[in-house]
Amino acid sequence: MTTHVQPVLDVAGEHVGRLMERTEALLHEIAAGHGAALGEHASATLAAGGKRLRPVLVFVCAGAAENEDLVRAGAAVELLHMATLVHDDVLDRAPMRRGRPTVFWTSGRHAATATGDFLFARAFAQLAATRSPAAVKALSEASSSLARGELMQRDDAFSPTVTEERYLERATLKTGRLFEAACRLGSVLGVPGEEAADALGRFGDRIGLAFQIFDDVLDLSGPPDQTGKSRGTDLLDGTATLPIIYARAEDPSLADARPESASEAEALCDRIAATSALERARERALAFVAESKAILSLIQLSDNQRLALTLIADGVVERYS
Amino acid sequence: MTTHVQPVLDVAGEHVGRLMERTEALLHEIAAGHGAALGEHASATLAAGGKRLRPVLVFVCAGAAENEDLVRAGAAVELLHMATLVHDDVLDRAPMRRGRPTVFWTSGRHAATATGDFLFARAFAQLAATRSPAAVKALSEASSSLARGELMQRDDAFSPTVTEERYLERATLKTGRLFEAACRLGSVLGVPGEEAADALGRFGDRIGLAFQIFDDVLDLSGPPDQTGKSRGTDLLDGTATLPIIYARAEDPSLADARPESASEAEALCDRIAATSALERARERALAFVAESKAILSLIQLSDNQRLALTLIADGVVERYS
Repeated sequence: MTTHVQPVLDVAGEHVGRLMERTEALLHEIAAGHGAALGEHASATLAAGGKRLRPVLVFVCAGAAENEDLVRAGAAVELLHMATLVHDDVLDRAPMRRGRPTVFWTSGRHAATATGDFLFARAFAQLAATRSPAAVKALSEASSSLARGELMQRDDAFSPTVTEERYLERATLKTGRLFEAACRLGSVLGVPGEEAADALGRFGDRIGLAFQIFDDVLDLSGPPDQTGKSRGTDLLDGTATLPIIYARAEDPSLADARPESASEAEALCDRIAATSALERARERALAFVAESKAILSLIQLSDNQRLALTLIADGVVERYS
Repeated sequence: MTTHVQPVLDVAGEHVGRLMERTEALLHEIAAGHGAALGEHASATLAAGGKRLRPVLVFVCAGAAENEDLVRAGAAVELLHMATLVHDDVLDRAPMRRGRPTVFWTSGRHAATATGDFLFARAFAQLAATRSPAAVKALSEASSSLARGELMQRDDAFSPTVTEERYLERATLKTGRLFEAACRLGSVLGVPGEEAADALGRFGDRIGLAFQIFDDVLDLSGPPDQTGKSRGTDLLDGTATLPIIYARAEDPSLADARPESASEAEALCDRIAATSALERARERALAFVAESKAILSLIQLSDNQRLALTLIADGVVERYS
């Protein structure tokens, strides 16, 4: 999963690689520094890895800047992201994530909820240390949005009438806003300039949307050995993702389908794959990537920065391809 | 439950009453301002009331100061407190709190988890608006401690060998730190002075410990019509509170008792009440109150402030008496 970050590091400049290493060290220090029980759970969550895509966005958006506040901000966005994953695993009763047992699975819902809360609190502690109110505000807004998006998803669960517009609103809240915050944090703590921060924030929002749509396509298309989970979990949860919305419009008989087992979900995935929904959703994701690149063309950036951000934008829809 | 705050308001000065009203208005604005679904859950949580003891501490520790940052800090500590209650209700599958159905009960664990996360995020958003890194740090430290305390409680669940020392460590994390943060926030955002902030923080910690011990006594002694919950929930959860630890030391046969129903828990409460454990725990709480007052005697305070803080200190162990 980390492969598509490497080309970004290659063009972004050596300082981004160094910032990434410092962020990794800080994350491990945070996980280990607050008692044995939390250390174990938090370290396991960290060790499960992930792409660290949000910290990369922070650093690339910061231009040539290289300072401790950026490391703190990179750690903060990753901590918030991890906190939501740990809580999601409790709600989904998920045994595995990224090929490893979840905190929920090894230690129960109490420990996992507390671990998520802890990661959440440490994210804000890191940003407090930057002494930048704009930074704390960016993360707290993203965090409120995440909660709102989660609630919206549950309100809409098993509703057969969720529209594309409503899906995009939810994806903005659940995913776009944290990508936006990552870009904004980099801009605010790196090369100052409110205008660039706004534009980079919009760039982040668009690639966040593309990322979410592509993720939702992968949930239906797999392959499971690469995504690390079985196909159709959104169908089982009753979450109407964009490809599902498209498939229902094309084949109305799909609207009533409500799988109750993994094998029924797999069969439904095959029926959806027989429509043009997956392809159309991929195209929608690519349109957001194109939009994100158009935003880049309006901002003053170094060549390295522009190339790195372009690679990131392309990368969010190139996973497993 | 609000009765014992009124005498504090009477002596603390009219400005504290005004700050409380502004905080209440801000809390309702926050609850209502982020979408219908969240508004409903967050407003219900707010409406359930509570003593607003933590905001009172913020304002009294701020001396004669009266500004918007204090209102934000008052709202922030209450939001964080409410967030933990909403999450606790999910973990405990609690149908009622303060005589009203919980968000968990009316809307399920997904909605309640998201509502808690949202309240959490808004707490930090409020503090970010104060532009005080020390304020954000105080709340994020308290919040990390809460999570650590929660985890510690689960690690120790049903352990027959929890010591008084271990209990006090947990109570400090779960309760003391947020009281400490409230006092520290008031001091930092009100009348400046790092030394007073430290001393007022220690005062807050001690009354937090007293509050927690007294709460744990009430869980065993009731009466249910005043506490709003049945007796012995800690026994059912396997949480070794201070009175339970004392009772076990006095009557070792209690160490193995593991009630499996509300009526078994009630019976066990009666056996514990037959020991001197409840009285000894109350005395321990009173000792912390005395300690808190001794700390006050070392700080420069106005007469009104000193009297108000003394009333708060006495109040945490005078509920229902």
